[in-house]
Amino acid sequence: MEFRLEDIDPDEIERRLAVVEPLTDSVRGLIDAVIRSEVDDAVLDRARARIDEITAELRVHQKPGGYGTPFTRDLRGMPWGNAATGLRNPIAPPLRPEHGAGVSTGSVHLGAAYEGPGGLVHGGVLALLMDQLVGECASTIVNMPHFTGTLTVRYLRPTKLGRVDLRAEVTGTQDRKTFVHVEVRDREGVTADGEAIMIRPKDFPGRDEVLAAIARTP
Amino acid sequence: MEFRLEDIDPDEIERRLAVVEPLTDSVRGLIDAVIRSEVDDAVLDRARARIDEITAELRVHQKPGGYGTPFTRDLRGMPWGNAATGLRNPIAPPLRPEHGAGVSTGSVHLGAAYEGPGGLVHGGVLALLMDQLVGECASTIVNMPHFTGTLTVRYLRPTKLGRVDLRAEVTGTQDRKTFVHVEVRDREGVTADGEAIMIRPKDFPGRDEVLAAIARTP
Repeated sequence: MEFRLEDIDPDEIERRLAVVEPLTDSVRGLIDAVIRSEVDDAVLDRARARIDEITAELRVHQKPGGYGTPFTRDLRGMPWGNAATGLRNPIAPPLRPEHGAGVSTGSVHLGAAYEGPGGLVHGGVLALLMDQLVGECASTIVNMPHFTGTLTVRYLRPTKLGRVDLRAEVTGTQDRKTFVHVEVRDREGVTADGEAIMIRPKDFPGRDEVLAAIARTP
Repeated sequence: MEFRLEDIDPDEIERRLAVVEPLTDSVRGLIDAVIRSEVDDAVLDRARARIDEITAELRVHQKPGGYGTPFTRDLRGMPWGNAATGLRNPIAPPLRPEHGAGVSTGSVHLGAAYEGPGGLVHGGVLALLMDQLVGECASTIVNMPHFTGTLTVRYLRPTKLGRVDLRAEVTGTQDRKTFVHVEVRDREGVTADGEAIMIRPKDFPGRDEVLAAIARTP
């Protein structure tokens, strides 16, 4: 993991989100429309050409790789490119987790883009959301990033497209391991659950080392 | 799962893909550009407005729900909306699995849209791809859809963004269960593996019943 400083204040964060969140939501709408559209091929072809024009304009200045996780000087992280929660990643539903001590919850609306079997959520999409939530949940106990060691997902029955609620809870800790249980519900109840063993990297820098690294950023 | 008849021949399938695959690839490019772009806010705002216009045109005629899995009369499935493999789903990388008897493989390029920690693939994205591949792999032994019962993913080390190769192999069967092992590799070797218990639904219609259902389609 790399650390990148974005030396901005809360007002500037809000100002940037006010631009990129609506743009990202628009692309989510476009994704849904491309899957479900039944318009003529000529309209689809014209859409493609116009999308390529927009993409070319956005690429005039761009980051060389992924978005990464920039931090402010007071260590507020902005993982806006994250595939599950990224406010700037149209692939993310996005999941917006809320946290208590040892408990994390989140709700998403999963439409056509998250389909597996007809009318049902792709089981792997649930695994993606579960993986994200158990990681964040482990961090509510020890405020450091955790990597997933093992994630076991048990699918109890199909999950209908639509609103899905997730809840993760820490069930124990042992040295650098944190154990987390997670459940997924659709409108009719629990559809899947999971058990995760989350691991805190041994050589992960502490807060002071991160601050020192950020201070060295030109 | 619902069955939907698309009474088209192979030429028509190719003709449709020739329109929707380039469109879907264009949206994949747009997703990447939205995450990585560093252009001025005014350009981002203008992009949003133009994307909304395109979306509105595509929505003039659209399917009511997800894309589902239409079948031709000779039972060729077209799961183009699938979140992992869908040729018409911009969220899918897409994974394009190849199959032998009891073995399935696939390679994808995972860019900024699939990021978790900075520079690394989101572990949950790997779980999504693994879940898809183990399901298809089970079907190479018994040619019927399988649902994932349990998927256990073991993350051995971080996976770098870029090319990722997957390989699934059936390790055994027992009644309606099929056991599948799956591995993920980045440029430097194996990064994750998994074990899946795939289940063939007891009341899943056989080929004859599916054909009868399709024949009843108006």
